Amino acid sequence: MEDSKRTEIGELGEFGLIDHLNKSIKIKNPSTFKGIGDDAAVIEAGDHVKVVTTDLLLEGVHFDLAYAPLQHVGFKAVAVNISDVAAMNAIPKQITVSIALSNRFSVEAVDALYSGINAAAEHYNVDVIGGDTTASRSGLVISITAIGEAKKEELSYRSGAKVNDIICATGDLGGALVGLQILEREKQVFMANPDMKPDLDKYTFVTARQLKPDSRMDIIHELRELGVVPTSMLDISDGLASELFHICKASNVGVTIYEDKLPIDKQTFDTAVELNMDPITCVLNGGEDYELLFTIDQKDFEKLEKHADIHFIGHTTKPEDGKNLVTKSGTVVELKAQGWKHF
Amino acid sequence: MEDSKRTEIGELGEFGLIDHLNKSIKIKNPSTFKGIGDDAAVIEAGDHVKVVTTDLLLEGVHFDLAYAPLQHVGFKAVAVNISDVAAMNAIPKQITVSIALSNRFSVEAVDALYSGINAAAEHYNVDVIGGDTTASRSGLVISITAIGEAKKEELSYRSGAKVNDIICATGDLGGALVGLQILEREKQVFMANPDMKPDLDKYTFVTARQLKPDSRMDIIHELRELGVVPTSMLDISDGLASELFHICKASNVGVTIYEDKLPIDKQTFDTAVELNMDPITCVLNGGEDYELLFTIDQKDFEKLEKHADIHFIGHTTKPEDGKNLVTKSGTVVELKAQGWKHF
Repeated sequence: MEDSKRTEIGELGEFGLIDHLNKSIKIKNPSTFKGIGDDAAVIEAGDHVKVVTTDLLLEGVHFDLAYAPLQHVGFKAVAVNISDVAAMNAIPKQITVSIALSNRFSVEAVDALYSGINAAAEHYNVDVIGGDTTASRSGLVISITAIGEAKKEELSYRSGAKVNDIICATGDLGGALVGLQILEREKQVFMANPDMKPDLDKYTFVTARQLKPDSRMDIIHELRELGVVPTSMLDISDGLASELFHICKASNVGVTIYEDKLPIDKQTFDTAVELNMDPITCVLNGGEDYELLFTIDQKDFEKLEKHADIHFIGHTTKPEDGKNLVTKSGTVVELKAQGWKHF
Repeated sequence: MEDSKRTEIGELGEFGLIDHLNKSIKIKNPSTFKGIGDDAAVIEAGDHVKVVTTDLLLEGVHFDLAYAPLQHVGFKAVAVNISDVAAMNAIPKQITVSIALSNRFSVEAVDALYSGINAAAEHYNVDVIGGDTTASRSGLVISITAIGEAKKEELSYRSGAKVNDIICATGDLGGALVGLQILEREKQVFMANPDMKPDLDKYTFVTARQLKPDSRMDIIHELRELGVVPTSMLDISDGLASELFHICKASNVGVTIYEDKLPIDKQTFDTAVELNMDPITCVLNGGEDYELLFTIDQKDFEKLEKHADIHFIGHTTKPEDGKNLVTKSGTVVELKAQGWKHF
């Protein structure tokens, strides 16, 4: 690697690097309906389509075995991929699971990891159809690819939102970020004094949001039963604001969301305050909740109106109206996306 | 990971660990035609089937950047997955590419890696449809999933060989292993004395076999043109003997192969001798050649007889006849599989 010019990856950032790499990619095969640029790719499959998504998870970057039990790491690794299939409004059917591990791991530890993977495969009704098992010089590496099915007309892309669609978010947001802060705090306490037992009883909800998120396949099945196809959809992995930006860019719309409509759990709120974090910032920029963000045509509002776990947080606007948050006091502020930075 | 019992992974070995993990896996979805156990999984796709395969490659385990240029690492990462699609007698169409990298890598280095990935995508006519780009605390990690297409009746599984089928191997074998030994030797020389320039001119063929293998998609297309569907097939990634064992187990047959029929390149032979390695052992147990091993019905022999790059190395037998190598002197010796060990 003796380059005459050396550009640091940090100069581009994660999204910048991905954009840079994707520029060189061209689609050639007619069976590729959608390549890079959504939660999953879409390929032709005779009478239906397959969606394909993949995630690469590394110890020390995506999970910390100091507080994440291996069962939960396995479950989460599957769930985050299922979440991307859900975000296409498709039904997951198969996964491949590749792992790399060092001799620090015993067979019993690998079994614990796989018990989580298999529990998730059972929970989401997917088959583990392949993978690769190999040695690692350092930590645990997990790579999962998930494949789902849908009729072509059932798919929800990021790019389908129209002006004046209603913006919906499922569940509650910010919990996974707050849970991570608690786990990191208790880890520091424990490292400073190994006799201190971490006190996590007060924080079971937020730590579970971080350690064992559930993909919202329940919502996907309910949307089908109610006959609603979202005009656009993605899963909230990088934070609500960042995902809204994706919809704006892909669909060429603006958004207006309302602070008093944003869903936050009481424990998330209280813990954020305890940690001197702004709860609304946690909701807007906290990642890893794996809830769904989608837009619906106004005609579908009645069908979802009574759903206890779908929140109507705002609406799409003309692109020139920008991206706005209306605060509780009625002030309109510009929405900023922050997202996760690993680099 | 406080286990009451600790079993080291080394006690099971790579294949033992994989068998152990696969025991817990059950197939539930009718759209999964074939799960773990062949070169690729097979899933339903309306009027055809998709084959799916994945590989996880780690710096320091699967490649050494001390002598492997990043372009070649990228090309090879794609080629080894294409090879698994070829081994199912399917045509590759899409790949996902995930990479993890540390800040040791510059944007220019990542571009070099991707130039190899894109060159391979072009060469094999596949689309890069997705992936993941993330940070790594240590070395480069590459995870690729390849998806191919075939008609159901075109697939070649490991399990289809019948007694008295003809065993075919493409290309030549052992080169990649011998190339690896040369590269390792020159690396040691260079590390002992950085002023020494590695002398690789004599070894261009074998080092290329290691650094930039080509999947034999050309053979797959030729087999189609000739109207031959192999009764069983796999790619030679772990060594000829090991792959023959897979056919024997999956198809419940024995094999007899002939030393004088085994294909070896002159440079591979000469370099093996120079390195005090037995050339035939290199052919039998050298991995990573990514040639194809397949069996055909005798009625198809005429169609392939004149093919310059397909070698008829033996035939299948009743399972009770075992796995045998007939040496040049006519002695029958039992075949042993060794394969690659990463753990």
